[in-house]
Amino acid sequence: MREGKKISSAVIKRLPRYYRYLGDLLDKDILRISSKDLSQRMGITASQIRQDLNHFGCFGQQGYGYNVELLYQEVQHILGLDRRYNIILVGAGNFGQVLVNNQNFTNRGFVFTAAFDNSPDVIGKTVNGINVYDVATIRDYISKNHVDIAALCVPPNAVQDIAKTVTDAGIKGVWNFSHNDLRLPEDIVVENVRLTDSLMTLSYKINEDEILRRAVRDVW
Amino acid sequence: MREGKKISSAVIKRLPRYYRYLGDLLDKDILRISSKDLSQRMGITASQIRQDLNHFGCFGQQGYGYNVELLYQEVQHILGLDRRYNIILVGAGNFGQVLVNNQNFTNRGFVFTAAFDNSPDVIGKTVNGINVYDVATIRDYISKNHVDIAALCVPPNAVQDIAKTVTDAGIKGVWNFSHNDLRLPEDIVVENVRLTDSLMTLSYKINEDEILRRAVRDVW
Repeated sequence: MREGKKISSAVIKRLPRYYRYLGDLLDKDILRISSKDLSQRMGITASQIRQDLNHFGCFGQQGYGYNVELLYQEVQHILGLDRRYNIILVGAGNFGQVLVNNQNFTNRGFVFTAAFDNSPDVIGKTVNGINVYDVATIRDYISKNHVDIAALCVPPNAVQDIAKTVTDAGIKGVWNFSHNDLRLPEDIVVENVRLTDSLMTLSYKINEDEILRRAVRDVW
Repeated sequence: MREGKKISSAVIKRLPRYYRYLGDLLDKDILRISSKDLSQRMGITASQIRQDLNHFGCFGQQGYGYNVELLYQEVQHILGLDRRYNIILVGAGNFGQVLVNNQNFTNRGFVFTAAFDNSPDVIGKTVNGINVYDVATIRDYISKNHVDIAALCVPPNAVQDIAKTVTDAGIKGVWNFSHNDLRLPEDIVVENVRLTDSLMTLSYKINEDEILRRAVRDVW
């Protein structure tokens, strides 16, 4: 891999998918696979696979294919999944509580260590074994505990302030479930999950043919 | 817009964001905006905005800018948001129940009309006012009721079968919350929401500098 060369977000977005497929192969005791076989399983071209993986080094061998276990471990390392990440939940409502209860995250090394809310109804309670604290104490918690990621499940009008608070306190990764775009320093990593946008994309695709057929009127 | 020309998914993914920003402008009674102002608010270039919107027609006017309300209505129409979508939930566990309880979807015209599960614990109950039926009856329900979208919140080993069942029964849109890639006919629209992938992307970005610095060993 060329030192310091940025990987395109398109490639990065595909890596978790490689990771899943390679994990499935290992579960089936398939220890070696050609880029052709892998491409057929994943529905992307073999050359695409070679290009993607070459960003990170040379994993394939002519006539042998890929060593599934080594490639799995390498993608795992590339994705930073060979370590544990501590996550705090901000906003312990229904949605936030579902996140904390999702065992898939823990299995991948993403562990919720605390939750915060401003509602007396939930402060002091526990969700899936983690404590829900008063959000007023969040800065203090972050200063005393190692936290990698803050999952923000708060109302739109509160999300920018809380994002600033947790990142000012030292958190580098923000998992944003609000629709708002966050204004944060360059060195902060933000991953947005926007379910309503996802639905809108779905409705667009459902109507696409009709939309593309119809002539759009000039609104002027 | 050139008749029948496919719009790139990158553009489509930006449309909900335009829709949100234009809606915010309307809420603030801002009825007219230059592509420059809009680009500063959205953090994308003015030429990008013009390119995106030109896919769908000519919305801007030199020296005047964009008519916010007309553009909002047009993007709404392009996204297919000027009609109602009936959604059924398959898998009425914690996560599925949170989806049904999300008022944002209803506000956008995405209305859950029924839920299905295979667990006696939830069959016959109601979630946010909608009934949870035995999944064994889902084909019959779809044949008797208009359903646009099926939200699939079922275990990985069940998702392909249930996706085939609901699409065979006539549903055109699938909102897939499982990690599995679905094998469905060409005319079926699938939108995947993969929270664990989103976390993996976040962990990659958190480690990116270190990952790009380190020389990847040749595993052969």
